[in-house]
Amino acid sequence: MTMEKKITVLPGDGIGPEVVASAVRVLQVIGKRFNHTFQLNYATIGGAAIDQHNNPLPDETIAMCENSDAILLGAVGGPKWDNNSPELRPEKGLLRIRKHFDLFANLRPVKAFASLLDASPLKREVAENVDLMIVRELTGGVYFGEPRMRTENGAIDTVVYSTAEIERIVENAFELARLRNGKLCSVDKANVLETSRLWREVVEAKKKDYPDVQVEHNLVDSVAMKLITNPGHYDVVVTENMFGDILSDEASVITGSLGVLPSASIRGDNFGLYEPVHGSAPEIAGQGVANPAATILSVAMMLQYSFGLKEEAAEIERAVSAVFNDGYFTADLARDGSRILSTTEWTDKVINEIDTSF
Amino acid sequence: MTMEKKITVLPGDGIGPEVVASAVRVLQVIGKRFNHTFQLNYATIGGAAIDQHNNPLPDETIAMCENSDAILLGAVGGPKWDNNSPELRPEKGLLRIRKHFDLFANLRPVKAFASLLDASPLKREVAENVDLMIVRELTGGVYFGEPRMRTENGAIDTVVYSTAEIERIVENAFELARLRNGKLCSVDKANVLETSRLWREVVEAKKKDYPDVQVEHNLVDSVAMKLITNPGHYDVVVTENMFGDILSDEASVITGSLGVLPSASIRGDNFGLYEPVHGSAPEIAGQGVANPAATILSVAMMLQYSFGLKEEAAEIERAVSAVFNDGYFTADLARDGSRILSTTEWTDKVINEIDTSF
Ligand SMILES: CC(C)[C@H](C(=O)O)[C@@H](O)C(=O)O
Ligand SMILES: CC(C)[C@H](C(=O)O)[C@@H](O)C(=O)O
Repeated sequence: MTMEKKITVLPGDGIGPEVVASAVRVLQVIGKRFNHTFQLNYATIGGAAIDQHNNPLPDETIAMCENSDAILLGAVGGPKWDNNSPELRPEKGLLRIRKHFDLFANLRPVKAFASLLDASPLKREVAENVDLMIVRELTGGVYFGEPRMRTENGAIDTVVYSTAEIERIVENAFELARLRNGKLCSVDKANVLETSRLWREVVEAKKKDYPDVQVEHNLVDSVAMKLITNPGHYDVVVTENMFGDILSDEASVITGSLGVLPSASIRGDNFGLYEPVHGSAPEIAGQGVANPAATILSVAMMLQYSFGLKEEAAEIERAVSAVFNDGYFTADLARDGSRILSTTEWTDKVINEIDTSF
Repeated sequence: MTMEKKITVLPGDGIGPEVVASAVRVLQVIGKRFNHTFQLNYATIGGAAIDQHNNPLPDETIAMCENSDAILLGAVGGPKWDNNSPELRPEKGLLRIRKHFDLFANLRPVKAFASLLDASPLKREVAENVDLMIVRELTGGVYFGEPRMRTENGAIDTVVYSTAEIERIVENAFELARLRNGKLCSVDKANVLETSRLWREVVEAKKKDYPDVQVEHNLVDSVAMKLITNPGHYDVVVTENMFGDILSDEASVITGSLGVLPSASIRGDNFGLYEPVHGSAPEIAGQGVANPAATILSVAMMLQYSFGLKEEAAEIERAVSAVFNDGYFTADLARDGSRILSTTEWTDKVINEIDTSF
């Protein structure tokens, strides 16, 4: 079954354009090999969009995304825009695109590559075999709750969740757990927060529909420990926006490199935004040394979650893993005896791996 | 200079009474050795207080604490009270005692003991030499902000900080940094939260008074990574209540055992509450196997921060460290070839160490 898909590409700032260029090459090779047509349209977001349109998420970008099947994003941000007012900061583009497209489910898989574990701060026996998925609610909670403002003598922010918002993300996590190893850990702070008590109730109610999924509730502070002491314990972890931000970044250290972690931000239908977990790394931008693995793996997530192309996604994952196993790394993962490749050279290896396996 | 001090002792639940008994023995030995008188008065908190007074923080307990110079607490909580209504849960006693006594500064030192690093999930080279102090704001933020309630279609919580609340904790952290290695990392989520932007402004303003302290601002998600990838980077870390809850528990894994981490919750004068970081561990309560090190080290913090007795505090720390170096551990830290002692036996070793060094 061949497919025709329209993808909006938002390279963004810093190393964004470089890693996106690599991922696009891999995508096109997959298209050729499996007979799909991926039509790419480029637009701006973040700092690049502020520079060109004085708006971190221009209307043209929104319109183009609305007219496409998925979005591929590089990264946004950099010192150039650090002192801008909140509305003119690159990350505002990210927050707005999530909200505009109602991309409420942020999927962040953390899977250890055996060949990278020397770079992990964790002992090999703790990190190996880790294969977990953090499902972070992405369009609610304290990120968007009102009021958020200065008061007479201070400031306030508001954590807001509707039951419906919790239900849809929790369902999403249950469905994922069912497709994986059937274990779900719901994370909250129910001993302190009212929103967390509601969250826990929703999970308890939903679990009746998923008798095949084993559910545990755990407090965010406790999970912050266990993600490091025993990450192998987890399969799917579901949590609210702020806790998810912290825990998913924390979990990202397990693999030994932010440079290999993809993410998907999806909604009820198949539309989604795919981006690497790492940032725009302005300090190494333009040098051709960035690690494109996370963006390439984000394309694999796009194929799987937005287009249902499992075999194609698996082929990318296999190729990336094979290149690491062959001992080829970009500079961020360099170690004694490894071969250091540029962004383009490393991408060539992945593409060759895909080609030669026809 | 001999001292006379009144201490309220709140053993609490689970292993609380056992570890507190050990810490009290050590305190009395220090009193004898250095010629101080510590008068101890016992009261209830948490589950034990719910059972006896139907109140997790009875008025008698408050009155006794008001009439003392410091509080030593074991731990609260257990499955017995897990399904109680929020007002009748053990941790409500903890939250109320913090608020009642305005114990706004929670100090959580994380210091690696070389002899325990085999038990750490982190590689030895990452964890060794770590010596950091997390300063968590303890009486504000989303823990106490109003409104916190169910709404028509969901629930809300409120993050509230006054400028004055931020100022006092930030000052406290600057003072500590000055006494330590002169480095302060302030943690916030200023790219999203209004309270965080205020927090950052306060730190910026205060730093003018502390030209000798080197300050950095960092985002909570980024610190959640760096605490694991490069914990040696940190000296003093200051943050708001919820972030502090998560990051301090996360940082606690570095040492290899929750069982060795003390904490202090203090206010502007010298009054403070001292407790181990670990919980009540109901599954091992009453068996005499709990690790008393964290509570013993909490007593050392009491001597230092509430009573200004630095030499006495250092003597306890030295003794604990010596016992670990001699290869004596409680069961939680057991490993091949180590000698496993009971709570009481291990405490005896610490006391002998103090005695023989007269
Ligand atoms: C840039 C920032 C607003 C964003 C977030 O907190 O959601 C980022 O940390 C992320 O996790 O994608
Ligand atoms: C028991 C709970 C309310 C408490 C908190 O979140 O403050 C605990 O986790 C702590 O850190 O002392």
